[in-house]
Amino acid sequence: MNTKKDIVQKIISDRVHAPKPFGLGHAKANIALVKYWGKRDNELNLPETNSFSITLPLGTTTNITLANNEDIVVLNGTKIENQDQFYTRLVLFLNYFRPDASTHFKVETTNEIPTSAGLASSASGFAALTLALDSFFSMNLDQKMLSILSRLGSGSASRSIFTGFVEWQKGSNKDGSDSFAEKFSHFWPELRIGLSIISSAKKSIDSRKAMDITRKTSSLWKSWPDQVTHDITQIKKAIIEKDFELFGSTAEHNALAMHATMIAASPTILYWLPESIQMMHRIWDARKKGIPVYFTMDAGPNLKLLFLEKDKSIIEQEFPTIQTLVPPQ
Amino acid sequence: MNTKKDIVQKIISDRVHAPKPFGLGHAKANIALVKYWGKRDNELNLPETNSFSITLPLGTTTNITLANNEDIVVLNGTKIENQDQFYTRLVLFLNYFRPDASTHFKVETTNEIPTSAGLASSASGFAALTLALDSFFSMNLDQKMLSILSRLGSGSASRSIFTGFVEWQKGSNKDGSDSFAEKFSHFWPELRIGLSIISSAKKSIDSRKAMDITRKTSSLWKSWPDQVTHDITQIKKAIIEKDFELFGSTAEHNALAMHATMIAASPTILYWLPESIQMMHRIWDARKKGIPVYFTMDAGPNLKLLFLEKDKSIIEQEFPTIQTLVPPQ
Repeated sequence: MNTKKDIVQKIISDRVHAPKPFGLGHAKANIALVKYWGKRDNELNLPETNSFSITLPLGTTTNITLANNEDIVVLNGTKIENQDQFYTRLVLFLNYFRPDASTHFKVETTNEIPTSAGLASSASGFAALTLALDSFFSMNLDQKMLSILSRLGSGSASRSIFTGFVEWQKGSNKDGSDSFAEKFSHFWPELRIGLSIISSAKKSIDSRKAMDITRKTSSLWKSWPDQVTHDITQIKKAIIEKDFELFGSTAEHNALAMHATMIAASPTILYWLPESIQMMHRIWDARKKGIPVYFTMDAGPNLKLLFLEKDKSIIEQEFPTIQTLVPPQ
Repeated sequence: MNTKKDIVQKIISDRVHAPKPFGLGHAKANIALVKYWGKRDNELNLPETNSFSITLPLGTTTNITLANNEDIVVLNGTKIENQDQFYTRLVLFLNYFRPDASTHFKVETTNEIPTSAGLASSASGFAALTLALDSFFSMNLDQKMLSILSRLGSGSASRSIFTGFVEWQKGSNKDGSDSFAEKFSHFWPELRIGLSIISSAKKSIDSRKAMDITRKTSSLWKSWPDQVTHDITQIKKAIIEKDFELFGSTAEHNALAMHATMIAASPTILYWLPESIQMMHRIWDARKKGIPVYFTMDAGPNLKLLFLEKDKSIIEQEFPTIQTLVPPQ
């Protein structure tokens, strides 16, 4: 039995030094172009398939210091209550690193991602926290180990240790020692991401739970791993050859196929709102008019538009409410 | 090579008598509760899987007489032009039955299904035409043969030869001689169907073409046949035990899974409009309030509500625009 604490302690034990006055970490959010959907191990966040993401220019900065009697968590300047789910989840993660029960941390986190952006902040959050702990205890871990540790907080956090295009290798070991992310060697500076916010309401169903229900009940899920393997090959090819049509269509198709596995789950998991469908039809209409724009979607109602800098002005004209982001290398 | 004409002639050849003054046929529309989706033979309309339907109280009546110089087709009192797709499709079907090139037919068809009902009329249409031809030539074919012949006109027409619950056996023979429908031995008089019309516009993509694209490009389609097998078993069990929750959830799940295979096709086939999603959410909200209502959907944006007579008034109150139908036994 591999508990998370055992795994973390095995990685860090002979690298931990006396805590510094503070430890600082910063990591960026990412969105998957080929999705992480379905776990082979729920406890260790081990995925059924590889996944492939692009980094966003928005992230999380976290500072760790020592605290006196209990862990203290401050998010964007506001102290979080002990009963809060966010607090519980952080403290659970800190437990894996805590040298002894009497050591307490103060975690101050600043999120550049507005909650209204419809973007997950757990990826950059757990990556930044891991980096802060690495600095705090002067561990100087390599990126592979940092990726493994971040993954234990949130699966997609494994990818936020890197920037640019990132592939998370699913690995096959039971303890997850070969399940970590790697930076892809190519970049595409002209790529742009347009956030289209349909609803910033809390998700109708938590994505962790949705993954689980889909995996257990969706007959169509069986075919998903093959699709991912195919799509990762295609998207790498598209990046290397700067083939935007292949890039966009692969990402869009992969996102829709992920949603399709959920729609075929029992009970159905449908994150789409009427406005999501409207936006899809608008994007397809724009493509019919010759505008090269595609989209991806995560476990929520919002769409993320994919396009190139050269088409930015026409796309912002066509979709005046989007917020355009420049992905960092 | 089995051409449709060869197959038809083999079935009817020694049964055809001199034409009567007229031949009349009537058949009802049906909606699949477990869908027909994907063909193993495009020419002969041979399906990959069984399917299971319920009959609607709306149908098609067709009268055949002899004509002089060319086939004449009259739909709801209006003569159809020779260039019309509807005309071409009927004449093609008549060719399989035509004793010689100089025999021409006048086909008068009355459709009880308003075009705005969002229901396919090809199922009842080809079944009624087959029955009219059977009568016209005094063939007295059994229902199995009538089902096979109707299938050559339109796959789902094979089911419209019967009423009540009907299962179309996919069969395995190359010539389709074992691919026909059969009446299910149980009925459920309290079942109701509520038509909810979102759009009566022509389909964005023909379902025959959609089936083909899905089968060829949707990675998720591979799992579909297993789902159908499972769902047919479940829905029969639900009917026998009058378990409405199992009945409704199986039908709804099957319809959504069919749409999911299309959403995962490349290019995506999305029949849903924003209003379709709105209606789904409204139905799920009604269920949360304890109202037993489910839906099914075919290759289009409209929903068909499934409920029991006992809940009719509350459901018509909740969904004032639906048209309630009583399925005939």
